[in-house]
Amino acid sequence: MTDSMTLRDLQNLIETMYSAKDVQRGTAGTFMWLMEEIGELAAALREGTPEELAAEFADVLAWLATIANVADIDLTQAVHDKYGGGCPGCQAMVCVCNVKP
Amino acid sequence: MTDSMTLRDLQNLIETMYSAKDVQRGTAGTFMWLMEEIGELAAALREGTPEELAAEFADVLAWLATIANVADIDLTQAVHDKYGGGCPGCQAMVCVCNVKP
Repeated sequence: MTDSMTLRDLQNLIETMYSAKDVQRGTAGTFMWLMEEIGELAAALREGTPEELAAEFADVLAWLATIANVADIDLTQAVHDKYGGGCPGCQAMVCVCNVKP
Repeated sequence: MTDSMTLRDLQNLIETMYSAKDVQRGTAGTFMWLMEEIGELAAALREGTPEELAAEFADVLAWLATIANVADIDLTQAVHDKYGGGCPGCQAMVCVCNVKP
């Protein structure tokens, strides 16, 4: 893995590392784990060291990639479709609307 | 944006599009928005079309990138440090431990 890790690299990494468990656990069970990591991210945002905070971001991304794998969603395509043409609200690359406050 | 979008591209895209608002909103206010999108992801996992589900994954990624920008965390480095050497529990590229059930 290099400094230029793509979203697809992330999904493939998690697929390789955990897919056997992920398929057994299913979407709802996996979502519970994502929630646990979201809670740990909240705690780290409040009082974690930069290293702890970075690790929690990585865990949230890993579980999000897991759910995307289980649900057969391509994160690269998803981001491209939603944000590749600019802000979904105003289509500007530098948002000038109020869709995202 | 191409098919090979990196995590850094994602952070840069969101930085360009929304940083003026993001800095004003701060970490806690931004986290609330992430939670709203997490709720919409849950709903889409239960009963959304594939297109709706993909859009919700994109929104969660966008808000996660926003918080990382506000908190000055490099997602690429974070994932590399946590998962680049294999599973954090057993160091294997195909996990054989029980750290992640």
